[in-house]
Amino acid sequence: MIYALILAAGKGTRMGNVDLPKQFMQLGSRPIVIHTVEKFMLHDALDRIIVVAPQDWLQYTTDILNRYIGHDPRLMVTAGGPDRNESIMNALRYVDKQFGIQADDIVITHDSVRPFVTRRIIEENIQYALETGAVDTVIPAIDTIVKSTSGQYIDEIPYRTEMYQGQTPQSFNARKLMHLYGELSAEERSTLTDACKIFTLRQQPVRLVRGEVFNIKITTPYDLKVAEALLEGGTHH
Amino acid sequence: MIYALILAAGKGTRMGNVDLPKQFMQLGSRPIVIHTVEKFMLHDALDRIIVVAPQDWLQYTTDILNRYIGHDPRLMVTAGGPDRNESIMNALRYVDKQFGIQADDIVITHDSVRPFVTRRIIEENIQYALETGAVDTVIPAIDTIVKSTSGQYIDEIPYRTEMYQGQTPQSFNARKLMHLYGELSAEERSTLTDACKIFTLRQQPVRLVRGEVFNIKITTPYDLKVAEALLEGGTHH
Repeated sequence: MIYALILAAGKGTRMGNVDLPKQFMQLGSRPIVIHTVEKFMLHDALDRIIVVAPQDWLQYTTDILNRYIGHDPRLMVTAGGPDRNESIMNALRYVDKQFGIQADDIVITHDSVRPFVTRRIIEENIQYALETGAVDTVIPAIDTIVKSTSGQYIDEIPYRTEMYQGQTPQSFNARKLMHLYGELSAEERSTLTDACKIFTLRQQPVRLVRGEVFNIKITTPYDLKVAEALLEGGTHH
Repeated sequence: MIYALILAAGKGTRMGNVDLPKQFMQLGSRPIVIHTVEKFMLHDALDRIIVVAPQDWLQYTTDILNRYIGHDPRLMVTAGGPDRNESIMNALRYVDKQFGIQADDIVITHDSVRPFVTRRIIEENIQYALETGAVDTVIPAIDTIVKSTSGQYIDEIPYRTEMYQGQTPQSFNARKLMHLYGELSAEERSTLTDACKIFTLRQQPVRLVRGEVFNIKITTPYDLKVAEALLEGGTHH
Protein backbone atom coordinates (compact mmCIF):
# COMPACT_ATOMS: atom_id res chain seq x y z
CA MET A 1 0.00 0.00 0.00
CA ILE A 2 1.06 3.56 -0.67
CA TYR A 3 -0.26 6.17 1.72
CA ALA A 4 -0.08 9.93 1.28
CA LEU A 5 -0.21 12.05 4.43
CA ILE A 6 -1.18 15.64 3.73
CA LEU A 7 0.18 17.47 6.77
CA ALA A 8 -2.37 20.12 7.70
CA ALA A 9 -2.13 20.02 11.49
CA GLY A 10 -0.38 23.38 11.91
CA LYS A 11 -2.35 26.20 13.48
CA GLY A 12 0.18 28.88 12.66
CA THR A 13 -1.32 32.16 11.64
CA ARG A 14 1.71 34.02 10.36
CA MET A 15 -0.74 35.30 7.76
CA GLY A 16 -1.54 38.12 10.17
CA ASN A 17 -4.75 38.95 11.95
CA VAL A 18 -6.77 36.00 10.77
CA ASP A 19 -8.04 33.09 12.81
CA LEU A 20 -7.98 30.67 9.91
CA PRO A 21 -4.90 28.39 9.77
CA LYS A 22 -3.06 29.09 6.53
CA GLN A 23 -3.83 25.72 4.91
CA PHE A 24 -7.51 26.66 4.86
CA MET A 25 -7.06 30.08 3.26
CA GLN A 26 -8.31 30.62 -0.28
CA LEU A 27 -5.91 30.39 -3.20
CA GLY A 28 -7.80 31.31 -6.33
CA SER A 29 -11.17 29.59 -6.04
CA ARG A 30 -10.33 26.92 -3.44
CA PRO A 31 -8.64 26.49 -0.04
CA ILE A 32 -4.90 25.83 -0.30
CA VAL A 33 -5.21 22.31 1.15
CA ILE A 34 -7.78 21.39 -1.51
CA HIS A 35 -5.34 22.27 -4.30
CA THR A 36 -2.76 20.06 -2.63
CA VAL A 37 -5.10 17.10 -2.10
CA GLU A 38 -6.19 17.32 -5.74
CA LYS A 39 -2.59 16.86 -6.92
CA PHE A 40 -2.44 13.55 -5.05
CA MET A 41 -5.94 12.44 -6.08
CA LEU A 42 -4.73 12.43 -9.69
CA HIS A 43 -2.40 9.53 -8.86
CA ASP A 44 -3.82 6.05 -9.19
CA ALA A 45 -0.78 4.56 -7.42
CA LEU A 46 -1.87 6.08 -4.11
CA ASP A 47 -4.15 3.79 -2.09
CA ARG A 48 -5.12 6.30 0.58
CA ILE A 49 -4.79 10.08 0.88
CA ILE A 50 -5.03 11.09 4.52
CA VAL A 51 -5.39 14.71 5.57
CA VAL A 52 -3.82 15.20 8.99
CA ALA A 53 -5.70 18.13 10.55
CA PRO A 54 -5.72 19.90 13.94
CA GLN A 55 -8.03 18.13 16.43
CA ASP A 56 -10.47 21.03 16.56
CA TRP A 57 -10.52 21.46 12.77
CA LEU A 58 -11.40 17.84 11.90
CA GLN A 59 -15.04 18.57 11.10
CA TYR A 60 -14.13 21.70 9.16
CA THR A 61 -11.58 19.72 7.12
CA THR A 62 -14.12 16.99 6.37
CA ASP A 63 -16.64 19.62 5.35
CA ILE A 64 -14.40 21.38 2.83
CA LEU A 65 -13.23 18.05 1.35
CA ASN A 66 -16.89 17.09 0.84
CA ARG A 67 -17.72 20.47 -0.60
CA TYR A 68 -14.80 20.87 -3.03
CA ILE A 69 -13.92 17.26 -3.87
CA GLY A 70 -16.90 15.14 -2.82
CA HIS A 71 -16.90 11.63 -1.50
CA ASP A 72 -13.94 9.47 -2.47
CA PRO A 73 -13.14 6.16 -0.78
CA ARG A 74 -9.41 6.93 -0.86
CA LEU A 75 -9.81 10.17 1.10
CA MET A 76 -9.62 10.22 4.92
CA VAL A 77 -9.12 12.73 7.72
CA THR A 78 -7.35 12.16 11.02
CA ALA A 79 -5.98 14.27 13.88
CA GLY A 80 -2.36 15.43 14.11
CA GLY A 81 -0.12 15.77 17.15
CA PRO A 82 1.79 18.53 18.95
CA ASP A 83 4.51 18.75 16.31
CA ARG A 84 5.22 17.66 12.78
CA ASN A 85 6.79 14.30 13.54
CA GLU A 86 4.16 13.44 16.16
CA SER A 87 1.52 14.26 13.55
CA ILE A 88 3.15 11.79 11.16
CA MET A 89 3.30 9.13 13.90
CA ASN A 90 -0.32 9.70 14.96
CA ALA A 91 -1.39 9.27 11.37
CA LEU A 92 0.71 6.13 10.94
CA ARG A 93 -0.79 4.59 14.08
CA TYR A 94 -4.22 5.40 12.68
CA VAL A 95 -3.29 3.79 9.36
CA ASP A 96 -1.87 0.77 11.14
CA LYS A 97 -5.08 0.30 13.14
CA GLN A 98 -7.26 0.67 10.04
CA PHE A 99 -5.28 -1.40 7.55
CA GLY A 100 -2.27 -2.98 9.24
CA ILE A 101 1.01 -1.58 7.91
CA GLN A 102 2.95 -4.14 5.87
CA ALA A 103 6.70 -4.47 5.35
CA ASP A 104 6.75 -2.79 1.94
CA ASP A 105 4.22 -0.07 2.58
CA ILE A 106 5.27 3.46 1.66
CA VAL A 107 4.20 6.72 3.26
CA ILE A 108 4.51 9.98 1.34
CA THR A 109 4.40 12.98 3.67
CA HIS A 110 3.65 16.38 2.14
CA ASP A 111 3.03 19.90 3.42
CA SER A 112 -0.59 20.85 2.86
CA VAL A 113 0.64 24.36 2.04
CA ARG A 114 2.76 23.24 -0.96
CA PRO A 115 0.03 23.06 -3.63
CA PHE A 116 2.41 23.21 -6.61
CA VAL A 117 3.89 19.72 -6.22
CA THR A 118 4.09 17.93 -9.58
CA ARG A 119 3.27 14.49 -10.90
CA ARG A 120 6.95 13.78 -11.57
CA ILE A 121 7.96 14.66 -8.03
CA ILE A 122 5.31 12.33 -6.57
CA GLU A 123 6.27 9.50 -8.96
CA GLU A 124 9.97 9.76 -8.13
CA ASN A 125 9.15 9.82 -4.43
CA ILE A 126 7.30 6.54 -4.79
CA GLN A 127 10.01 4.94 -6.91
CA TYR A 128 12.92 5.88 -4.65
CA ALA A 129 11.03 5.17 -1.42
CA LEU A 130 10.50 1.61 -2.71
CA GLU A 131 14.19 1.35 -3.62
CA THR A 132 15.92 3.12 -0.72
CA GLY A 133 13.37 3.43 2.10
CA ALA A 134 13.73 7.19 2.55
CA VAL A 135 13.43 10.13 0.15
CA ASP A 136 13.80 13.89 0.45
CA THR A 137 12.69 16.38 -2.20
CA VAL A 138 15.22 19.20 -2.59
CA ILE A 139 16.40 21.91 -4.93
CA PRO A 140 20.02 23.00 -5.31
CA ALA A 141 20.65 25.94 -2.97
CA ILE A 142 19.76 29.12 -4.81
CA ASP A 143 21.39 31.40 -2.28
CA THR A 144 24.80 31.13 -0.69
CA ILE A 145 24.34 29.16 2.54
CA VAL A 146 25.99 30.57 5.64
CA LYS A 147 26.55 28.83 8.96
CA SER A 148 26.53 30.87 12.17
CA THR A 149 26.08 29.48 15.66
CA SER A 150 26.14 32.96 17.24
CA GLY A 151 23.78 34.59 14.76
CA GLN A 152 26.22 37.52 14.71
CA TYR A 153 29.32 36.29 12.92
CA ILE A 154 29.88 33.76 10.14
CA ASP A 155 31.33 30.38 11.16
CA GLU A 156 31.54 28.88 7.70
CA ILE A 157 30.39 29.29 4.11
CA PRO A 158 30.04 25.73 2.77
CA TYR A 159 30.52 24.99 -0.94
CA ARG A 160 27.22 25.95 -2.51
CA THR A 161 27.35 23.06 -4.97
CA GLU A 162 26.96 20.64 -2.04
CA MET A 163 24.03 22.46 -0.45
CA TYR A 164 20.33 21.91 -1.09
CA GLN A 165 17.10 23.43 0.17
CA GLY A 166 14.54 20.95 1.47
CA GLN A 167 10.98 20.79 0.20
CA THR A 168 8.37 18.06 0.45
CA PRO A 169 7.24 15.34 -0.21
CA GLN A 170 9.43 13.27 2.09
CA SER A 171 8.69 9.61 1.63
CA PHE A 172 9.56 6.55 3.65
CA ASN A 173 9.14 2.88 4.17
CA ALA A 174 6.36 3.28 6.75
CA ARG A 175 7.41 0.46 9.06
CA LYS A 176 11.06 1.52 9.07
CA LEU A 177 10.09 5.11 9.85
CA MET A 178 7.98 4.04 12.84
CA HIS A 179 10.71 1.71 14.04
CA LEU A 180 13.51 4.31 13.82
CA TYR A 181 11.39 7.01 15.44
CA GLY A 182 10.51 4.65 18.27
CA GLU A 183 14.20 4.10 18.97
CA LEU A 184 15.10 7.79 19.30
CA SER A 185 15.70 9.28 22.74
CA ALA A 186 13.54 12.16 23.98
CA GLU A 187 16.52 14.45 23.46
CA GLU A 188 17.05 13.28 19.90
CA ARG A 189 13.36 13.80 19.18
CA SER A 190 13.46 17.34 20.56
CA THR A 191 16.18 18.34 18.07
CA LEU A 192 14.35 16.95 15.04
CA THR A 193 13.07 19.60 12.70
CA ASP A 194 12.82 17.24 9.79
CA ALA A 195 11.56 13.68 9.31
CA CYS A 196 14.51 12.72 7.10
CA LYS A 197 16.77 13.41 10.06
CA ILE A 198 15.22 10.39 11.78
CA PHE A 199 17.07 8.37 9.14
CA THR A 200 20.32 10.35 8.98
CA LEU A 201 20.66 10.23 12.80
CA ARG A 202 20.86 6.45 12.43
CA GLN A 203 23.11 6.52 9.34
CA GLN A 204 20.33 5.25 7.10
CA PRO A 205 20.47 6.34 3.43
CA VAL A 206 18.12 9.06 2.22
CA ARG A 207 17.75 9.45 -1.54
CA LEU A 208 17.27 12.89 -3.09
CA VAL A 209 14.53 13.75 -5.56
CA ARG A 210 14.79 16.97 -7.52
CA GLY A 211 12.06 19.41 -6.51
CA GLU A 212 11.02 22.57 -8.31
CA VAL A 213 11.66 26.22 -7.44
CA PHE A 214 7.92 26.87 -7.74
CA ASN A 215 7.06 24.07 -5.27
CA ILE A 216 6.83 26.76 -2.61
CA LYS A 217 5.50 26.56 0.94
CA ILE A 218 2.81 29.15 1.58
CA THR A 219 3.30 30.53 5.09
CA THR A 220 3.11 34.32 4.83
CA PRO A 221 0.94 36.89 3.01
CA TYR A 222 3.94 37.42 0.73
CA ASP A 223 3.97 33.72 -0.19
CA LEU A 224 0.23 33.82 -0.85
CA LYS A 225 0.75 36.71 -3.25
CA VAL A 226 3.44 34.72 -5.05
CA ALA A 227 1.15 31.69 -5.15
CA GLU A 228 -1.67 33.72 -6.68
CA ALA A 229 0.77 34.93 -9.36
CA LEU A 230 1.91 31.35 -10.00
CA LEU A 231 -1.66 30.11 -10.24
CA GLU A 232 -2.64 32.83 -12.72
CA GLY A 233 0.54 32.65 -14.73
CA GLY A 234 0.68 28.88 -14.85
CA THR A 235 4.50 29.02 -14.69
CA HIS A 236 4.34 25.65 -12.95
CA HIS A 237 2.90 23.80 -15.93
CA MET B 1 34.66 57.54 1.64
CA ILE B 2 31.84 55.08 1.24
CA TYR B 3 31.48 53.52 -2.20
CA ALA B 4 28.54 51.45 -3.43
CA LEU B 5 29.20 49.01 -6.25
CA ILE B 6 26.04 47.97 -8.07
CA LEU B 7 27.05 44.69 -9.67
CA ALA B 8 25.47 44.60 -13.12
CA ALA B 9 28.22 42.85 -15.10
CA GLY B 10 26.38 39.57 -15.59
CA LYS B 11 25.20 38.71 -19.08
CA GLY B 12 23.09 35.78 -17.99
CA THR B 13 19.87 35.43 -19.87
CA ARG B 14 18.08 32.79 -17.82
CA MET B 15 15.03 34.90 -18.56
CA GLY B 16 14.61 32.84 -21.72
CA ASN B 17 14.93 33.85 -25.36
CA VAL B 18 15.85 37.47 -24.82
CA ASP B 19 19.13 39.16 -25.61
CA LEU B 20 18.80 41.70 -22.85
CA PRO B 21 20.73 40.86 -19.64
CA LYS B 22 18.24 40.55 -16.80
CA GLN B 23 19.39 43.69 -14.94
CA PHE B 24 18.19 45.80 -17.89
CA MET B 25 14.72 44.25 -18.12
CA GLN B 26 11.71 46.35 -17.18
CA LEU B 27 10.17 46.03 -13.73
CA GLY B 28 7.09 48.21 -13.63
CA SER B 29 8.04 51.43 -15.39
CA ARG B 30 11.85 51.21 -15.15
CA PRO B 31 14.74 48.81 -15.76
CA ILE B 32 15.55 46.63 -12.73
CA VAL B 33 19.00 48.19 -12.26
CA ILE B 34 17.45 51.68 -12.12
CA HIS B 35 15.22 50.66 -9.19
CA THR B 36 18.30 49.35 -7.41
CA VAL B 37 20.44 52.44 -8.06
CA GLU B 38 17.61 54.65 -6.82
CA LYS B 39 17.61 52.89 -3.44
CA PHE B 40 21.27 53.82 -2.99
CA MET B 41 20.85 57.36 -4.34
CA LEU B 42 18.52 58.07 -1.41
CA HIS B 43 21.47 57.69 0.98
CA ASP B 44 23.51 60.79 1.70
CA ALA B 45 26.19 58.71 3.42
CA LEU B 46 27.27 57.21 0.09
CA ASP B 47 29.97 59.23 -1.66
CA ARG B 48 29.92 57.36 -4.97
CA ILE B 49 27.51 54.88 -6.54
CA ILE B 50 29.28 52.92 -9.24
CA VAL B 51 27.40 50.69 -11.65
CA VAL B 52 29.65 47.83 -12.75
CA ALA B 53 28.41 46.84 -16.22
CA PRO B 54 29.52 44.41 -18.96
CA GLN B 55 32.18 45.98 -21.22
CA ASP B 56 29.88 46.02 -24.25
CA TRP B 57 26.94 47.43 -22.28
CA LEU B 58 28.77 50.45 -20.82
CA GLN B 59 27.19 52.98 -23.19
CA TYR B 60 23.76 51.42 -22.79
CA THR B 61 24.08 51.60 -19.00
CA THR B 62 25.16 55.24 -19.15
CA ASP B 63 22.24 55.99 -21.45
CA ILE B 64 19.56 54.51 -19.19
CA LEU B 65 21.05 56.18 -16.10
CA ASN B 66 20.86 59.53 -17.92
CA ARG B 67 17.36 58.82 -19.13
CA TYR B 68 15.79 57.60 -15.87
CA ILE B 69 17.88 59.37 -13.23
CA GLY B 70 19.68 62.21 -14.97
CA HIS B 71 23.10 63.59 -14.22
CA ASP B 72 24.36 63.14 -10.69
CA PRO B 73 27.99 63.70 -9.68
CA ARG B 74 27.88 60.66 -7.37
CA LEU B 75 26.90 58.30 -10.18
CA MET B 76 29.55 56.49 -12.27
CA VAL B 77 29.79 53.52 -14.63
CA THR B 78 32.72 51.16 -15.05
CA ALA B 79 33.41 47.78 -16.66
CA GLY B 80 33.25 44.46 -14.78
CA GLY B 81 35.43 41.38 -15.11
CA PRO B 82 35.00 37.72 -16.04
CA ASP B 83 33.38 36.80 -12.71
CA ARG B 84 31.79 38.43 -9.71
CA ASN B 85 34.93 38.88 -7.61
CA GLU B 86 36.97 40.08 -10.59
CA SER B 87 34.23 42.62 -11.26
CA ILE B 88 34.53 43.88 -7.70
CA MET B 89 38.32 44.09 -8.01
CA ASN B 90 38.17 45.86 -11.39
CA ALA B 91 35.82 48.41 -9.86
CA LEU B 92 38.04 48.88 -6.80
CA ARG B 93 41.11 49.45 -9.00
CA TYR B 94 39.09 52.03 -10.93
CA VAL B 95 38.05 53.70 -7.66
CA ASP B 96 41.63 53.62 -6.41
CA LYS B 97 42.90 55.29 -9.57
CA GLN B 98 40.18 57.98 -9.46
CA PHE B 99 40.18 58.79 -5.76
CA GLY B 100 42.89 56.82 -3.96
CA ILE B 101 41.44 54.30 -1.52
CA GLN B 102 42.10 55.25 2.11
CA ALA B 103 42.47 52.99 5.14
CA ASP B 104 38.92 53.49 6.42
CA ASP B 105 37.08 53.47 3.10
CA ILE B 106 34.10 51.14 2.84
CA VAL B 107 32.77 49.39 -0.21
CA ILE B 108 29.17 48.16 -0.30
CA THR B 109 28.65 45.54 -3.02
CA HIS B 110 25.09 44.84 -4.13
CA ASP B 111 23.39 42.74 -6.80
CA SER B 112 21.85 45.01 -9.41
CA VAL B 113 18.96 42.53 -9.60
CA ARG B 114 17.97 42.96 -5.92
CA PRO B 115 15.88 46.12 -6.19
CA PHE B 116 14.01 45.64 -2.90
CA VAL B 117 16.95 46.39 -0.57
CA THR B 118 15.91 48.70 2.27
CA ARG B 119 17.32 51.78 3.95
CA ARG B 120 17.85 49.86 7.20
CA ILE B 121 19.84 47.13 5.47
CA ILE B 122 22.11 49.68 3.80
CA GLU B 123 22.59 51.62 7.06
CA GLU B 124 23.51 48.50 9.04
CA ASN B 125 25.92 47.44 6.31
CA ILE B 126 27.73 50.76 6.64
CA GLN B 127 27.75 50.66 10.45
CA TYR B 128 29.07 47.10 10.77
CA ALA B 129 31.55 47.45 7.88
CA LEU B 130 33.09 50.36 9.78
CA GLU B 131 33.15 48.30 13.00
CA THR B 132 34.14 44.83 11.75
CA GLY B 133 35.54 45.25 8.24
CA ALA B 134 33.25 42.69 6.59
CA VAL B 135 29.46 42.28 6.51
CA ASP B 136 27.07 39.78 4.97
CA THR B 137 23.32 40.31 4.66
CA VAL B 138 21.42 37.10 5.41
CA ILE B 139 18.04 35.75 6.41
CA PRO B 140 17.50 32.73 8.68
CA ALA B 141 17.14 29.63 6.51
CA ILE B 142 13.50 29.26 5.57
CA ASP B 143 13.88 25.73 4.27
CA THR B 144 15.65 22.80 5.85
CA ILE B 145 19.21 22.84 4.51
CA VAL B 146 20.61 19.55 3.29
CA LYS B 147 24.22 18.71 2.51
CA SER B 148 25.01 16.20 -0.23
CA THR B 149 28.34 15.78 -1.97
CA SER B 150 27.00 13.10 -4.32
CA GLY B 151 23.80 14.92 -5.25
CA GLN B 152 22.04 11.57 -4.78
CA TYR B 153 22.08 10.83 -1.06
CA ILE B 154 22.01 13.07 2.01
CA ASP B 155 25.32 13.51 3.89
CA GLU B 156 23.98 15.69 6.66
CA ILE B 157 21.04 17.82 7.76
CA PRO B 158 22.58 20.65 9.82
CA TYR B 159 20.59 22.33 12.60
CA ARG B 160 18.37 24.79 10.81
CA THR B 161 18.71 27.38 13.56
CA GLU B 162 22.40 27.75 12.64
CA MET B 163 21.83 28.12 8.91
CA TYR B 164 21.25 31.32 6.94
CA GLN B 165 20.61 32.19 3.32
CA GLY B 166 22.89 34.85 1.86
CA GLN B 167 21.63 37.99 0.18
CA THR B 168 23.38 41.26 -0.61
CA PRO B 169 24.68 43.87 0.17
CA GLN B 170 28.04 42.51 1.26
CA SER B 171 30.21 45.29 2.58
CA PHE B 172 33.90 45.52 3.34
CA ASN B 173 36.79 47.65 4.33
CA ALA B 174 37.93 48.29 0.75
CA ARG B 175 41.64 48.12 1.36
CA LYS B 176 41.43 44.95 3.43
CA LEU B 177 39.28 43.29 0.76
CA MET B 178 41.84 44.09 -1.96
CA HIS B 179 44.68 42.96 0.25
CA LEU B 180 43.10 39.62 1.20
CA TYR B 181 42.01 38.89 -2.37
CA GLY B 182 45.53 39.64 -3.60
CA GLU B 183 46.92 37.05 -1.20
CA LEU B 184 44.67 34.18 -2.35
CA SER B 185 46.09 31.45 -4.57
CA ALA B 186 44.62 30.82 -8.02
CA GLU B 187 43.06 27.65 -6.64
CA GLU B 188 41.48 29.47 -3.71
CA ARG B 189 40.09 32.08 -6.09
CA SER B 190 38.58 29.44 -8.33
CA THR B 191 36.52 28.01 -5.45
CA LEU B 192 35.13 31.39 -4.37
CA THR B 193 31.45 31.81 -5.06
CA ASP B 194 31.07 34.56 -2.54
CA ALA B 195 33.08 37.66 -1.60
CA CYS B 196 32.62 37.05 2.14
CA LYS B 197 34.50 33.81 1.70
CA ILE B 198 37.63 35.87 0.94
CA PHE B 199 37.46 36.83 4.62
CA THR B 200 36.40 33.48 6.11
CA LEU B 201 39.19 31.67 4.19
CA ARG B 202 41.64 33.82 6.18
CA GLN B 203 39.75 33.52 9.49
CA GLN B 204 38.71 37.17 9.40
CA PRO B 205 35.40 38.03 11.14
CA VAL B 206 32.30 38.68 9.03
CA ARG B 207 29.37 40.34 10.78
CA LEU B 208 25.79 39.41 9.86
CA VAL B 209 23.09 41.93 9.00
CA ARG B 210 19.48 40.79 8.93
CA GLY B 211 18.09 40.92 5.39
CA GLU B 212 14.48 40.64 4.34
CA VAL B 213 12.59 37.78 2.71
CA PHE B 214 11.41 40.19 0.01
CA ASN B 215 14.98 41.30 -0.81
CA ILE B 216 14.89 38.80 -3.66
CA LYS B 217 17.31 38.33 -6.54
CA ILE B 218 15.55 38.50 -9.89
CA THR B 219 17.09 35.87 -12.18
CA THR B 220 14.20 33.99 -13.79
CA PRO B 221 10.84 34.86 -15.36
CA TYR B 222 9.29 33.43 -12.19
CA ASP B 223 11.27 35.90 -10.04
CA LEU B 224 10.22 38.76 -12.30
CA LYS B 225 6.59 37.80 -11.80
CA VAL B 226 7.12 37.79 -8.04
CA ALA B 227 8.88 41.16 -8.26
CA GLU B 228 5.98 42.67 -10.20
CA ALA B 229 3.61 41.41 -7.50
CA LEU B 230 5.86 42.89 -4.78
CA LEU B 231 6.06 46.21 -6.59
CA GLU B 232 2.28 46.44 -7.01
CA GLY B 233 1.45 45.16 -3.56
CA GLY B 234 4.04 47.25 -1.78
CA THR B 235 4.59 44.40 0.72
CA HIS B 236 8.17 45.65 1.04
CA HIS B 237 7.22 48.98 2.60
